[in-house]
This record gives sequence, structure tokens and C-alpha cells, in this order.
Amino acid sequence: MKKIAIVMGSDSDLPVVEKAFAVCREYGVPFEAHVLSAHRTPQQAAQFAASAREQGFGVIIAAAGKAAHLAGALAAQSTLPVIGIPIKASDLDGLDALLSTVQMPPGIPVATVAINGAANAAHLAVQMLAIADAELAAQLDAKREEMRTQVLAKDSALQQQLSEG
Amino acid sequence: MKKIAIVMGSDSDLPVVEKAFAVCREYGVPFEAHVLSAHRTPQQAAQFAASAREQGFGVIIAAAGKAAHLAGALAAQSTLPVIGIPIKASDLDGLDALLSTVQMPPGIPVATVAINGAANAAHLAVQMLAIADAELAAQLDAKREEMRTQVLAKDSALQQQLSEG
Amino acid sequence: MKKIAIVMGSDSDLPVVEKAFAVCREYGVPFEAHVLSAHRTPQQAAQFAASAREQGFGVIIAAAGKAAHLAGALAAQSTLPVIGIPIKASDLDGLDALLSTVQMPPGIPVATVAINGAANAAHLAVQMLAIADAELAAQLDAKREEMRTQVLAKDSALQQQLSEG
Amino acid sequence: MKKIAIVMGSDSDLPVVEKAFAVCREYGVPFEAHVLSAHRTPQQAAQFAASAREQGFGVIIAAAGKAAHLAGALAAQSTLPVIGIPIKASDLDGLDALLSTVQMPPGIPVATVAINGAANAAHLAVQMLAIADAELAAQLDAKREEMRTQVLAKDSALQQQLSEG
Amino acid sequence: MKKIAIVMGSDSDLPVVEKAFAVCREYGVPFEAHVLSAHRTPQQAAQFAASAREQGFGVIIAAAGKAAHLAGALAAQSTLPVIGIPIKASDLDGLDALLSTVQMPPGIPVATVAINGAANAAHLAVQMLAIADAELAAQLDAKREEMRTQVLAKDSALQQQLSEG
Amino acid sequence: MKKIAIVMGSDSDLPVVEKAFAVCREYGVPFEAHVLSAHRTPQQAAQFAASAREQGFGVIIAAAGKAAHLAGALAAQSTLPVIGIPIKASDLDGLDALLSTVQMPPGIPVATVAINGAANAAHLAVQMLAIADAELAAQLDAKREEMRTQVLAKDSALQQQLSEG
Amino acid sequence: MKKIAIVMGSDSDLPVVEKAFAVCREYGVPFEAHVLSAHRTPQQAAQFAASAREQGFGVIIAAAGKAAHLAGALAAQSTLPVIGIPIKASDLDGLDALLSTVQMPPGIPVATVAINGAANAAHLAVQMLAIADAELAAQLDAKREEMRTQVLAKDSALQQQLSEG
Amino acid sequence: MKKIAIVMGSDSDLPVVEKAFAVCREYGVPFEAHVLSAHRTPQQAAQFAASAREQGFGVIIAAAGKAAHLAGALAAQSTLPVIGIPIKASDLDGLDALLSTVQMPPGIPVATVAINGAANAAHLAVQMLAIADAELAAQLDAKREEMRTQVLAKDSALQQQLSEG
Repeated sequence: MKKIAIVMGSDSDLPVVEKAFAVCREYGVPFEAHVLSAHRTPQQAAQFAASAREQGFGVIIAAAGKAAHLAGALAAQSTLPVIGIPIKASDLDGLDALLSTVQMPPGIPVATVAINGAANAAHLAVQMLAIADAELAAQLDAKREEMRTQVLAKDSALQQQLSEG
Repeated sequence: MKKIAIVMGSDSDLPVVEKAFAVCREYGVPFEAHVLSAHRTPQQAAQFAASAREQGFGVIIAAAGKAAHLAGALAAQSTLPVIGIPIKASDLDGLDALLSTVQMPPGIPVATVAINGAANAAHLAVQMLAIADAELAAQLDAKREEMRTQVLAKDSALQQQLSEG
Repeated sequence: MKKIAIVMGSDSDLPVVEKAFAVCREYGVPFEAHVLSAHRTPQQAAQFAASAREQGFGVIIAAAGKAAHLAGALAAQSTLPVIGIPIKASDLDGLDALLSTVQMPPGIPVATVAINGAANAAHLAVQMLAIADAELAAQLDAKREEMRTQVLAKDSALQQQLSEG
Repeated sequence: MKKIAIVMGSDSDLPVVEKAFAVCREYGVPFEAHVLSAHRTPQQAAQFAASAREQGFGVIIAAAGKAAHLAGALAAQSTLPVIGIPIKASDLDGLDALLSTVQMPPGIPVATVAINGAANAAHLAVQMLAIADAELAAQLDAKREEMRTQVLAKDSALQQQLSEG
Repeated sequence: MKKIAIVMGSDSDLPVVEKAFAVCREYGVPFEAHVLSAHRTPQQAAQFAASAREQGFGVIIAAAGKAAHLAGALAAQSTLPVIGIPIKASDLDGLDALLSTVQMPPGIPVATVAINGAANAAHLAVQMLAIADAELAAQLDAKREEMRTQVLAKDSALQQQLSEG
Repeated sequence: MKKIAIVMGSDSDLPVVEKAFAVCREYGVPFEAHVLSAHRTPQQAAQFAASAREQGFGVIIAAAGKAAHLAGALAAQSTLPVIGIPIKASDLDGLDALLSTVQMPPGIPVATVAINGAANAAHLAVQMLAIADAELAAQLDAKREEMRTQVLAKDSALQQQLSEG
Repeated sequence: MKKIAIVMGSDSDLPVVEKAFAVCREYGVPFEAHVLSAHRTPQQAAQFAASAREQGFGVIIAAAGKAAHLAGALAAQSTLPVIGIPIKASDLDGLDALLSTVQMPPGIPVATVAINGAANAAHLAVQMLAIADAELAAQLDAKREEMRTQVLAKDSALQQQLSEG
Repeated sequence: MKKIAIVMGSDSDLPVVEKAFAVCREYGVPFEAHVLSAHRTPQQAAQFAASAREQGFGVIIAAAGKAAHLAGALAAQSTLPVIGIPIKASDLDGLDALLSTVQMPPGIPVATVAINGAANAAHLAVQMLAIADAELAAQLDAKREEMRTQVLAKDSALQQQLSEG
């Protein structure tokens, strides 16, 4: 199975990005995680992306804040799909990171998820791998069913609470 | 080969969305396009997404403006990756569509591209299909090389212009 | 008397939404509350809205955050008036939820109130029911008089404080 | 049948507001329209709202731009539901009017629709009147069916276009 | 000497508005303060403004948050200069109050100061009264000199700190 | 009578600022207008403001776009009230000029009007001069009456149009 | 004399960037201009920056729009000062480019100028070169004097116009 | 060696600005720091900038919040490069200070860094001085190498953590 690469621009992003680790583990999809900065280690970031496909990766997830160039920098070096997580790391509520990640020029897309949306980045990566993997797709469907059940259980709990209220 | 589904919320989005058609054709990837509204044809939109995987689709692209719910509504009904194109269709420069598309809750991601970024949505969809398709990946790499050459040709033209200037 | 339906996308919205319960109780208007997600339980949400009028509801209130599609998803399934409460639940101060709720396309309106404006959503719902209910309208007028008196009492308290100051 | 009041802050808003007239006529719901300014004719605006219920109105629609106080000023004088249309009339893309209209304090709600959303304001007003009017509700359902059919016709046209393309 | 009227929309604004009281006292300019709401006590607010000039007021200061209509509502009823203080009271960092206060239509200006800028509102009110009052103008000049001295003292303290550092 | 000073940062602001000239002329209030830049002619701007009171000015109006420092720069040199007009002159819809003008630090207020609100700046300046000038106040009241009449005339015209429609 | 490098991400930026050429020529400072994309020609962009100091450049100017990574990408490869020009190229008025350019992480600054501020980028570059070049500094002072004179001439023209008016 | 001037508009900015002191000390570049306000001590600020070049300064750094005019006011008085640090000091997350600092008019640039980006302001100032100082340039390169090493060390630590995890 192809691996998921999870790259963050700073280890201060780890508390957010760890939610992506958890999702990968839940689906049993192998992943590697790295701290690589588009601005402080540009060569290493470029080399990582340029060789990612041949290293067995199927998707790259990149998390960065402020002027968040990391996802775009990796996307410039690979034709693997790159998922960008805008990190809320500055004084502008993450809007800077969102716009820096999503507004990519024609030809070099970044699949952007919500601000701090690390769990969704991993869900999306698994969905991409599941295009050609029926078993993984079945896992995704099961997970959806589980989420559905959880919401309905919360609704039941609310009914209980209101009837007792 | 899996097909790409391209859904738009209104036929007024067609001038933007057609750029995605062109990219699909360029790579020779089959696609279907539909006008389906999350708010005016909710059942049809839901049914389309719910059966998309079994209909042979590998990726869904959804384009919508204003309170752009279409991508999210399709993502709620399918575990295929859904790519959202926020369309600039209102008086707020597309910021409303961007936020409505990208800020999805945990578990139901939408892979969001730039405002009006229809070409990139298709590039991204092809990248997803190419995870498990080496030939398509090679096409993507060739396209990148072509873009690189175009930029360098423009640089040469600028040098010519400056030396003559 | 018609009932008010109060739907929230997540039980984490309950601390905000409970203010709407209090207003309904204050006017003696019957209500039901549910946790239903546009993205995690799309069928249940759609069915609830589609049958709401025949179930005796007169108005639907929907509270959701981030890419807040819930109000729009319910409005797509019912011609009852739908009131949307944008919940501040993300890193963008609720602006994402506001724009996702209010910028609805022609034909499918959502009556949007302020960010986290749950009390006002219930006031508005009662106002809608009071269009054809003179007694309820009188209650609303009495409540306005009460608010007026409270403000004037606060003004008197300020005068007292300043004269003692 | 209760009438709908449509108030605009300036006759320059008429080209936008006229879409609300058309919707009222479509449903056969009687309406009156007025130019009344919260800032230039505050007494007349206040008196209009204060007597609106006894004049046979069931809903008030208010359209205004910039620091759009009109809807709130009318809501302060009546317990009828007030629908606010933020008009794009300034240099800020209508964001000023949207925030001035929607962010109302507790107790005095304004049911806000999209920027320049005059048609939706009228749809919403009709929905409010239809809470207690089964015939009008049936008209609304028929209109939804018509919108659904229109979207599906556009989808068919697109299929035709693509197959010929 | 003309008095300054200081009106706030809610007594919850008092902690911010009190800074204006302090400035008035510093200059020995008489003031009255009131809690009056544009939406909950519209008649009282209108009457206060309409009679303010004959009651001996020279300037009106109005503080309000969210969809801050108070300054505009008072300005609609008086040709005295009205100073608006946008209060940060909602989930949008005060931007809603700022735009609701400053973007007034032609003919009815509101002199807007910074978000939560209560001290500056009072400074500005005193400046207006000082146009025709040379003694008060002299006090203002003295205050400026005092501020200048304070900044230079802080600079000296910094030099001391750096030389010791 | 005190004069009004109208300063603009660039002669490209003249088409907007001329509306202030017209208002001054309407009230018969003397004014002087100047092109003075906070950044290109800082000494001249400072000297103008520093001597404005003794030159017989009662109020200073300053119009500037982008990083609009002019109003603040003049306010730093005079204790006359300074009215700021944020000019829409950049690519950010005037939001940059608005924030640069209104968010002044404690002690140095700028009375900010709407983006491009030149007419209102002059109305406000006249209101300031009228604090101590009963005749000018009467003119302001008469102008308000005229505006009221104009709105009511437009309402009558609309009634005519609707009844014929 | 050190040269100025002017790099733009796309030749569509040329109409804006040409203003920087003009300023360089005005001061007689040698410059080279290139079209190089952070995303389409990442290697060439990196190599250009990495060798810029040894190629005789003293400053790098980078112009890019949307998710504007170019300035940051060059700054990551060189310790020469890098000036960023955010280009208005998308549907968000250049705010995306501004935030993508200015919000750089610690250690890798980009000296950001106004949106589309190409002339100022060149002025700033010349100012940097003039730190150690007294003759160039004298040219800058002369240019300031010229700007001052131009503003005062415009003021004189306005006086003429008003006295004739 | 030329000195760096670090000016802040208020001593409350010191906790942010001190990071610039640390960077200067790290490179051994002499600096002076001052508290000078564009609005409270305009003459002193102007005089400081006007004489800065002859006092041996090579670069001026200016830090200010809200309507942040300080950098522009200094830039108006000197042709030395002026670096602006927008300080987050108001209720708008620093966006007001950013726009007030960066959107300068043609001819008077301010080299703007990120909100609260004091360390980067100093890095940038050192880069400017290093244009003509090969030794300082070597220090900058060494610092970049150190940053690179730190990121790679953090990546190694993450690998360790994941393998143990």
C-alpha cells in the first residue's frame, strides 16, 4: 500500500498535526512524518517531494502557518496530490495561512482543508488512496456509518435530557 | 480508467468550469459533467454522489458560489474524494464561497482549490487518479516540464525585450 | 399551536443553543430540539425537514458552525421558514459560519440572525408564529415593554451611581 | 391575507428591490412599497413600523446599504418579523451593510438574507405568511418543484451540449 | 459651558465608556451619561437627541456594539455633532460595530473614533467645544505638552535600561 | 466666522473632495483647500496644522487614501478637531484607508467619516462650528427638513409608479 | 555598483513591474529582470537566488500574485535583502498576495511593499544600495525634493482653480 | 559600521521589540532604541529621522500598532530604508497596523515585515547592512546554516518519537 507523507513546517505544529497521525493509524495506512521548512530547509523539502513517488508515497500532507508556503513548495516538486493544512499560528486567525495555501496558480494545485483541519487532511488522503482500493473504501464507508451512529446517539441523549429537563 | 465527475450548482458557472473540461481532455481522462444544485435538487445531488463510486467515478469535482454547499453536500454522501471550486458569484469576491467550501467539519473533508480554480481542480483530480496509474503520472510529469519550458521561454522573451528596450 | 424545531449540527453547540430553549419556554411555545448533521446524517436531516410541516412544525431553527450548511440543507427540503444561527466554532470568529448561512442562492432563503444569536432566533421564530396569533403578538409586545423598562432602570441606576460618584 | 411591507432606504435601491415585487406578484400576495430612511425620515419610519400590524401587514422587508440601520430601526418599533436585505451600496462590497443588518442585539432580531438578496427576502416573507396558510404553502411547494425542473432541464441541456461538443 | 452627552446602548459598555467620563472630568467639562438603546428604547433615544441642543448639550457621544445603530439613530434626530464609539462586543473583533457606525449615508455624519476609543471620543468632544473657547483650547494644548513629556520620559527610561542592560 | 480647512494628500483625491466644497458653499461657511502630503511634504503639512487655529480655522478636514496618515499627522500638530475622510484609492476597497484613519491612539483622535464621505465631512465640520452659532444650527435644521421632504417626495413618486405599474 | 534583480512570477505581472524598471533607470542603477516561478520553475528560481550575491546583485525584488510564494522562496535561498511586491491578480483584491508575502516566519524576512507597489519596491531597493553609497543617497534626497516641489505646485494650481472657481 | 535605529511608538511595544535587540546583539551590529510617537512627539520623531543618516545610522526600524503611522512618518523624513513592524495592539488582530504600515504611497516606501515580526525586522536590517559588508554576509549565511541544522534536528527528534511511539 502507498504511504502517506505528513510534513510540517515547524515542530510547534505537532499538537495539531498529531490528529492526522491518529486517523492514519485508525485506517491502518502507513505514514511517515517530517519536520521540513520551505524557508529554512528548502533543499531538503524540495528533495523530499521530488523523490516522494519513488519512495512509495501516494499522497503528501503539508501543514504550515502564517505565509504558509510549504504545501505549494512541495507541490512544485511532485505530481503527487498535495493536501495543505493551514495552521493557525499568527495574529490573523489563520486567514493568512488559508489564503497562502489555497490560492495556488494554475497547474500546481494544493488540496486545501480547513484551518487546523489535520484530521480531515488524513481522511482526505485515505479517500485518495481508496480510489483504487476497494477494501479501504469499505473502511471509509464503515467509518461514516460510525459517525452517523454517534450523531444519532447524541440526538437520543438530548431527547432524554429534554424530557427530564 | 475511473471517470471524473464535474458537478456545478448552476449553469451560470459553466464559463469557469469549462476550464476543467479542457484539462480532462488534455490528459485523456473521461469525465461527466452535471448541473445539480444542493438547494434546488437536493435529492438528485445526493443520489448522484451516493452512487458515484459504483458508477465508475474516482473523483468528484463540485463548483458553487455564494453559500457554496454543493461540495460538502456531495461529500456527505460519498467517500470518494470531493474537490471543491469556490466560484466568485456574489458581492464578496468569492470569500463567502471559499469559506463555505473549505471550513468542513471533521470527518467530511473537501479538497478545496483557489477561487474560480477550475483548471487546478481538474489537475488535482488527475493527480489523484495517477496515484495508482504510472502512465497518467508520467503525463503529469510531462505537463510540468511543458509549463517549466513555457516560463523559461517567457523569461527569454523578456531578456530580448529588455535588450532591445 | 405550531411547534418550533431547533436543530443543531453538533451537541457542542448546545451551550449556545439552550438560550433558544429558554425563549421558547418564556413564551410558552412548544419546541423540539435535535442534533442532526448536514454532513454526518444527511438523510436524517433531509427527512426531518421534508416532514416538518406535516409533523406540526411552523418554523425551523438551525445552528451550525464553520462551513455551516445545516440551515441551507434543511431549507432545501422544506418551504417552512428556516432561521439560521451561525455558530462561532472555528478559528475565524464565526465569519465563516455567517457567510455560509446567509449567502443563500435565489429561491431558498435562510433567515439569518447574529453569530451565536440563539435567543434572537427564538424571538424571531415566535414573531413568525405570531403573525397569525394575536395573543402571541400581545406577549411579544409585553416582552418589548419589559425590555424597555429594564433599560430605563439601568439608566436610573447609572444616574444614581454618577450622582454618588 | 396579510400584506407584505417593502421599505427601502433610498430610491437608488429600487433596481435591486424590484425583484421582491416580482416574487410577491408571482404568489399573488399583496404588498406595499415605500421609500423611508432611518436617518432622514426617522419619525415616518418609526410610525410606519409601529402601526404596521394594525395596518394589516404580516411581515416587513427592509433594504438598506452602508451602515444599514433601516431593518433594525423598524424592528425596534414592531414585533412583526422584519427581514433585512443588505444592499451593496458602498466601497466595501456590501460587507458593511451585512454586518449592520445581521448583528442585532438580543431581543430585536432581523431575519437577514444575502447581500442584494431581494428575491429571497420576498420568498422568505411568503414562507412566513404560509405558516398559517396551507394554500400558500402549496404554492411554495409548487414553485420548488418548478425550480427543480429548471435545474434538471439545464442539466439535460448540458448533456446535449457535451455530447455534441 | 455646553455639556457633553454620553449615551451607551447597554450598561455592559460602562467599563469602556468610563474612560470618557475621566477625560471630561480632567478638563472640567460638564457631562451627563445615559443608558439608552436604539432598539429597546427607540422613543427615549430619539427624544433625548431631539431635545439635546435645547437641554444645553454641545456634543453627543454614543457607544454601542455589534450592529451599532445608536450613534446613527441619535444623529438622525439632532444636528449636534455625534461622536460614535464602536464597542467590541461581539465575535467579530468590533469590525461590525466600526462599519455600522462609520459608514453613514450622506447628510447624517457620525464622527467615528477607534474601536473602544472612549477616551478619544471625549478628547474629540472637548476639541469641538474648544473651537469657540480659547481657555479650553489652552487646556488641550497643555495636555498635549504633558503627553509629549510622558513619551520623552519613557524614552529616557529606555535609554537608562539599555545602558544598564 | 471660523474657517474650515480642507486638506487632501493628492490632487487625485479632488473629484471626491469637491463634494465637501459644495457643502461648505451651501452653508456659506468659508473654507480653504490645500494639497499637502503627510509623506511628501511633511514639514508643510505640520506647519499648516500647527498654525491653523491662529489662522482662523475652526476645523480641519483631511482626505487621504491607502496608508492614510494625513489626518493623524495634522491631528498630531493641532488641538483643533480633525475630520478624516478615508479615500478609496488602493486595491483594498478603502479598508486600508479607513483603518489607517480611525484607529488612532489615545489622546489624538480623528473624527472619521465613511469611505469617500466628503460631503459628510463637511456636514460634520459645519455641525461643529454650529455648536456655538445658533444661526448656523438653524441652517442645519432647515437642511435636514429639506432632506426629509426629498425622501417623502421619492416615496410619493414610488406610490405613483406602483399604482400605474 | 551592485545590481538590482527584479523577478516576476508570470509575464502577466509585467505591466505592474515595469514601474520598477523606470525607477531603476531614473537613478541609473543597473538591474536585471526575469520571469521565474516559485511553482513552475522552482529549481531555476532557487538557483538564481542562491547565486545572486556572487553574480553582483545587492537586492532582489520579487513580484507575485495569489498565493504569492516567490519572494519567500527566493529569500529562503539568499541572505540578500528580498523585497516582495504583492500583485493584485486574483479575486481577493490582492489581500491573498499581501498576506502570503508579508507573514514570513522568523529568520527569513521579506521586505514587503504595498499591493502593486512596484515603484516603491525599486525606491526601497535603491535606498538599500544607498546605505553605503553617498552619491546615490544624494540622488534620493534630490528626488524627495522634487516630489515635494510637485506637491506644492499642485497646491498652487488648486489655489488658482479655487480663486477662479 | 552603520548603526540600526529601533524606534517604537509606545513603551508597551517593548516586549515585542526586544526580540529585535537580541538579533542585533547576535550579529554584533550596534543599535540604538527609542520611544518616539508619530502623534505625541511628532517633532522629535521627525528630527530623529531627518538626522539619522548623519548620526551614523544605516537603517531605521519602526514599530507601532493600531493606525500605525510611525514608520511612514520616519520614512517621510529620511531616505534611509525604513522597516515597519506592525504591532498587534488593537481589537483587530493587527490587520489595522499591517495595512497602515504597508500601503504607503509611491515614492515613500516602508519595508514591512509580519505582524509582531520584530526579529525579522532586525534580520532584514542586518541583511541591508550586509549588502556592502562581506563579513556580515558570511555571518548571515552561517545563521541560515544554523537554522537549517535546527530544523533537521527537530525532524530527527520526531523520527525518534514516532519510532518509539
